Amino acid sequence: MSLTQGQSYLAIPGPSVMPEAVLRAMHRSSPNIYEGELIDLTYGLLGDLKMVAGTAHDVAIYIGNGHAAWEAALSNVLAEGGRVLVPMAGSFGRGWGEMAEGLGVETEVIDFGRRAPIDPAQVSAALAADTGHKIKAVLAVHVDTSTSAKSDIAVLRSAIDAAEHPALLMVDCIASLGCDRFEMDAWGVDVMVAACQKGLMVPPGMAFVFFNDKAAAVRAEMRRVSRYWDWTPRANPEMYYQLFCGTAPTHHLYGLRVALDMIKAEGLEAVWARHETLAQAIWAASNAWGVGGPFELNIADPAARSHAVTSLRIGAAHGTRLRRWCQDQAGLTLGIGLGMGTDDDPAGDGFFRFGHMGHVNAQMIMGLLGTVQTGMRALDIPHGSGALEAAGDVIAAAT
Amino acid sequence: MSLTQGQSYLAIPGPSVMPEAVLRAMHRSSPNIYEGELIDLTYGLLGDLKMVAGTAHDVAIYIGNGHAAWEAALSNVLAEGGRVLVPMAGSFGRGWGEMAEGLGVETEVIDFGRRAPIDPAQVSAALAADTGHKIKAVLAVHVDTSTSAKSDIAVLRSAIDAAEHPALLMVDCIASLGCDRFEMDAWGVDVMVAACQKGLMVPPGMAFVFFNDKAAAVRAEMRRVSRYWDWTPRANPEMYYQLFCGTAPTHHLYGLRVALDMIKAEGLEAVWARHETLAQAIWAASNAWGVGGPFELNIADPAARSHAVTSLRIGAAHGTRLRRWCQDQAGLTLGIGLGMGTDDDPAGDGFFRFGHMGHVNAQMIMGLLGTVQTGMRALDIPHGSGALEAAGDVIAAAT
Amino acid sequence: MSLTQGQSYLAIPGPSVMPEAVLRAMHRSSPNIYEGELIDLTYGLLGDLKMVAGTAHDVAIYIGNGHAAWEAALSNVLAEGGRVLVPMAGSFGRGWGEMAEGLGVETEVIDFGRRAPIDPAQVSAALAADTGHKIKAVLAVHVDTSTSAKSDIAVLRSAIDAAEHPALLMVDCIASLGCDRFEMDAWGVDVMVAACQKGLMVPPGMAFVFFNDKAAAVRAEMRRVSRYWDWTPRANPEMYYQLFCGTAPTHHLYGLRVALDMIKAEGLEAVWARHETLAQAIWAASNAWGVGGPFELNIADPAARSHAVTSLRIGAAHGTRLRRWCQDQAGLTLGIGLGMGTDDDPAGDGFFRFGHMGHVNAQMIMGLLGTVQTGMRALDIPHGSGALEAAGDVIAAAT
Amino acid sequence: MSLTQGQSYLAIPGPSVMPEAVLRAMHRSSPNIYEGELIDLTYGLLGDLKMVAGTAHDVAIYIGNGHAAWEAALSNVLAEGGRVLVPMAGSFGRGWGEMAEGLGVETEVIDFGRRAPIDPAQVSAALAADTGHKIKAVLAVHVDTSTSAKSDIAVLRSAIDAAEHPALLMVDCIASLGCDRFEMDAWGVDVMVAACQKGLMVPPGMAFVFFNDKAAAVRAEMRRVSRYWDWTPRANPEMYYQLFCGTAPTHHLYGLRVALDMIKAEGLEAVWARHETLAQAIWAASNAWGVGGPFELNIADPAARSHAVTSLRIGAAHGTRLRRWCQDQAGLTLGIGLGMGTDDDPAGDGFFRFGHMGHVNAQMIMGLLGTVQTGMRALDIPHGSGALEAAGDVIAAAT
Repeated sequence: MSLTQGQSYLAIPGPSVMPEAVLRAMHRSSPNIYEGELIDLTYGLLGDLKMVAGTAHDVAIYIGNGHAAWEAALSNVLAEGGRVLVPMAGSFGRGWGEMAEGLGVETEVIDFGRRAPIDPAQVSAALAADTGHKIKAVLAVHVDTSTSAKSDIAVLRSAIDAAEHPALLMVDCIASLGCDRFEMDAWGVDVMVAACQKGLMVPPGMAFVFFNDKAAAVRAEMRRVSRYWDWTPRANPEMYYQLFCGTAPTHHLYGLRVALDMIKAEGLEAVWARHETLAQAIWAASNAWGVGGPFELNIADPAARSHAVTSLRIGAAHGTRLRRWCQDQAGLTLGIGLGMGTDDDPAGDGFFRFGHMGHVNAQMIMGLLGTVQTGMRALDIPHGSGALEAAGDVIAAAT
Repeated sequence: MSLTQGQSYLAIPGPSVMPEAVLRAMHRSSPNIYEGELIDLTYGLLGDLKMVAGTAHDVAIYIGNGHAAWEAALSNVLAEGGRVLVPMAGSFGRGWGEMAEGLGVETEVIDFGRRAPIDPAQVSAALAADTGHKIKAVLAVHVDTSTSAKSDIAVLRSAIDAAEHPALLMVDCIASLGCDRFEMDAWGVDVMVAACQKGLMVPPGMAFVFFNDKAAAVRAEMRRVSRYWDWTPRANPEMYYQLFCGTAPTHHLYGLRVALDMIKAEGLEAVWARHETLAQAIWAASNAWGVGGPFELNIADPAARSHAVTSLRIGAAHGTRLRRWCQDQAGLTLGIGLGMGTDDDPAGDGFFRFGHMGHVNAQMIMGLLGTVQTGMRALDIPHGSGALEAAGDVIAAAT
Repeated sequence: MSLTQGQSYLAIPGPSVMPEAVLRAMHRSSPNIYEGELIDLTYGLLGDLKMVAGTAHDVAIYIGNGHAAWEAALSNVLAEGGRVLVPMAGSFGRGWGEMAEGLGVETEVIDFGRRAPIDPAQVSAALAADTGHKIKAVLAVHVDTSTSAKSDIAVLRSAIDAAEHPALLMVDCIASLGCDRFEMDAWGVDVMVAACQKGLMVPPGMAFVFFNDKAAAVRAEMRRVSRYWDWTPRANPEMYYQLFCGTAPTHHLYGLRVALDMIKAEGLEAVWARHETLAQAIWAASNAWGVGGPFELNIADPAARSHAVTSLRIGAAHGTRLRRWCQDQAGLTLGIGLGMGTDDDPAGDGFFRFGHMGHVNAQMIMGLLGTVQTGMRALDIPHGSGALEAAGDVIAAAT
Repeated sequence: MSLTQGQSYLAIPGPSVMPEAVLRAMHRSSPNIYEGELIDLTYGLLGDLKMVAGTAHDVAIYIGNGHAAWEAALSNVLAEGGRVLVPMAGSFGRGWGEMAEGLGVETEVIDFGRRAPIDPAQVSAALAADTGHKIKAVLAVHVDTSTSAKSDIAVLRSAIDAAEHPALLMVDCIASLGCDRFEMDAWGVDVMVAACQKGLMVPPGMAFVFFNDKAAAVRAEMRRVSRYWDWTPRANPEMYYQLFCGTAPTHHLYGLRVALDMIKAEGLEAVWARHETLAQAIWAASNAWGVGGPFELNIADPAARSHAVTSLRIGAAHGTRLRRWCQDQAGLTLGIGLGMGTDDDPAGDGFFRFGHMGHVNAQMIMGLLGTVQTGMRALDIPHGSGALEAAGDVIAAAT
């Protein structure tokens, strides 16, 4: 018997659970794109996006996904023959680096494996070794969606500064914006990329590149930037259509307006605190399950764990089975393990992920955890006791 | 800090959680009500409604709520001066009886209290005492939404037959249809009333009266029936508008079409089994919590418990507090205790209810239970351990 | 070739074109019906409904259609054996009278045919003849949806007063509320019934009964009123559920909130003026077409024409053909002729109707008229020239 | 008085009127992007997109707008230092050329002004003069959305062939796909770009690049193509995420599925024929208005007019005034004149456009024309008579 007929819960690390208010706002006839309410609405988004990013500088909106934001950001400050340093704490660092290579940019990778964040000291050392300042930028992923490792961006900035290296600090906050604390200006980030379908709670289709004056100065020195990727007219348009280099993503803009209103109503600090508490509840349960069983958090150090996605290890015999049970029997969809295959487990069947980003509350997380525990019981996967109590106590203490 | 920002879960005993496919179907421009697709769609609903009710006889659809169905059913077979027997296992039996009194019908009530179902033997005795057959109908609530007591309708039928009494057996399945097993024809029910907003998963606004040939014959002998309540043209219309005595509830009909398609796709037996398993999971958790604490199921006998709503007792000091915590801190709304006030607890603060009817699956129930347990921990309400494991094991065993 | 693929336009006299903002508001998860925002929202509707009705007295909301409102209103002030006077200017007067008969009330009908409004003098005469004051109420339809005749309610009130008769003046504004000027208190109306799916722009499913103190006093003298129809607790509830005698029509309430906000934002006087201008545009085109052809407005006197529905005569050979052409070739659905059959044309094929109520603007009406004219050209139906210019000039003059 | 309160009609040349079925399909919770129904749905779209484009070759989908498709297409076959020939019949040819320049590609422009399509003979001559075959591609806009000029692509192909030049023929069908007949393979088009928000009836956010084997061979010879723009993995993915170079535009895909189903249900030939008839109706009205007044079609030759957008000239004193009247008084939004400013009329106030693409039927067009005529009457703009009759006769003749 299947017990899935009901409200499905998609707990993958993006796209996240869409608020019904966002979907409702997008269910409308097309607006005029030349004049009228859409114009004002769009310009009003820019300030709120910057607030969420912690910057007083510029933002360019792209119709696109996270990969689009990657390429857009790179295209504005790097040219063929340039070089970037890619400290890598999971698959997405590699992905961004490959986008750079696609633009003819050389990449120098420091791989921190799949279970740790970026080590700023090694970044500093690499930069110090680059005495010719051939490295034009450091590409750092704040939260790697595959490993769920969160790197300390403020310390990374200090490490770059310590090396007295002029490289831009470019940060991917696709999986963290609106979930984990991030303060672009305070932390000294030069370029930040994000997308709408995770913490920003809008269906996939929009991406964002934030940049500061240092980055803008680099852009100004570029010999040529593709018209579509050029952030200059997007961030400071003379005409509305320049905001999107053509037709605006009309319906998404209405959705984003509602999503940003929700974030403002709750308060960004409260949003971060909510994600932190719910993540801690997940960790508490995970640790309890791990006693005497194969359930294990991928990242050992709590300070290096995302508050929005949690990567898990449970052994090749169990992971995919458990994930499928949750989906086919209980109505809960978990994320697959991404880029985590090993020699023993080439398909990565021992890995999976919880997405807990954006529109997520205590009852959802308790449902997620209760379902996973029930799946382990159904499938006879050994697991420690007291997990849901431990998670509940984290929540209880916070409220 | 509140952890409510996310998908809210409304776990009250109706209106229930609306499937997004139902809401989507209702989001449409108005259809023609004189010809075209709506006409065919509507006639197609009748057979499926009867299938869900387990009857080959007739159904009349009303724009209205459950109270409308009560009055509609009564109006077709009872006139001023008539008498009904009302075996009462909660507030809703009384409510239906009062509707009868509003029509000038005398009621004879047998009150079984708040913690037990109808005792068919007492009904049989009362009917046997009515040697003049002044009692025209027995009004029985299948599942009383206030107490969550479920009465055995098939045995009740036998009890009426044993008394050799001609009274109609009229049953309220408002809280049970599409949740708990119900077989109108097989069980010998003459009239059944239901509404759309619980197991049928459609926003409030439609009610149903099913009736068999015996009831139709009583109707045929009525001196007068109000035009609006008259079920005859509704059940066997010559013209479309007679189905609704006027304008059709256009958008609701589209919603009901989708909801019935969902029930048919899952299979009615599977729907019942799903509700049963999830109810048993709730009971298992509740029993575990009750060890050493005030948490208590209102109905002791599992056979007399609804599979769609569970009434709970936790003490006046705890009930409303717990309910509010779930809503204000976790995004879970539980049902208030209805009609359960006592001398010690006039406001009924010690009572609350779980609704688990219609569009409900394992992950939702685990979220419900996990949240309630977390609330008890947050509020220092004593409760036994192992509840979520017990609930999970019920689910695990079923899948 | 069909040219229907596009936005369909349903120009029938109800249900009307639903604003997308109304549908959007109804597309939501179920709210709590015991506490929270729905409660406040609902109580807030009452004052706005009264504003639209022009009354400072009471309103009861019913889940139901117009027929439900008819029976509800009657049930509160009339008992078996009572008598009502029904001045009839179309099918709906008869329909209301039949609802009265279904309650055991005698009806005295004055039939003004299909092409004229109520003649107040004849009503006055009939009341004057009722020296025993057996007539308890006059049932008048403000705008008869079948004939599109609009009767002068203020003059009717004067006629009743002139007869010095105590009968209640009960008025059906189902097709006129929110379209044609109506002022309940100023015009001396005692009871008014309406529904949500026409000028109020909400999908069918709610009906309204407004009543003043005189009507309330009659109600207070009633021996018995059915619990469901009793307007007393609905209009002045002690508990929320009494507003609807049971479960609230949750989603409809959200829709009605938006619809009333739209009316308030435009202003009721502006809403009436818009309907008047658009109706005049339709009449101007109709008159032009009628020169040298069979196209004819059903009601000759402009003062007696509805501003929300227009009944038309074009001959049995043309009506249904034209209506089908508009729907099957052009995407415009017109209303059928209702209750207009004659000996020569038993099916009423020579009649049809334009609905222009609620959410209707100039471009829609020009589309309606342009399509109808095109249909006449396609079907070789003779018609005069200059119709669209005439309609346009009405609109041009108003803006 | 404003008569706008009602269903607004957005008659701009994109985004077009969204079908409610498309919006409904997009109003849903997020799907899994790793497995399940979305995967199958997406792959199923590819064949239907190719059917609409008239090609058996490849298609790459981009999250983006038309400008994204421009740059994507160019990026796959042109490198810095390359050269393209841009025969220009309006603003959009220039725009595409500028995108090429942004990539370091030289452009050779042949400007055919604002009132004529591309002259293939001049293209042929230019190519013949390029004896060194430095020109790698001809960038032709099928329908220029600013001028509404439609160029003959099949003849253009012949002209290229006649010059025995190897340049790719790249065509922009953004404003024509799904509206005007287009047959990629039969007409010998090598690369075609389009977007979803016009004839394909989906909110802005997706763009498409179709390419044949000749174009793929050019791509294969490219030294480097940006990862995001590279069409190879998108068109022939090994893994699902490659289809979109990252996260899929989940909700748009559901919308596109419905839109393509609508096109298939109507039949592509019928879709084209519908657009043609409605365009002819617009032309007939426009020609009639132009007799004795300033109303004038921008393109004189019917064969060179788009079936999806019509650019109009009415004089600087009238254009913007008329457009505003339609919007502010009647609920109809027309397109502004784009790129049509002159010395006498720098703001282009004498120009405007009708969009009539995608989800558009006869009643909408009659509403559009009737409203525009009414606006001219309201504003005392001279215009000839018989326009709506002329338009109607085109429609009548077709049905």
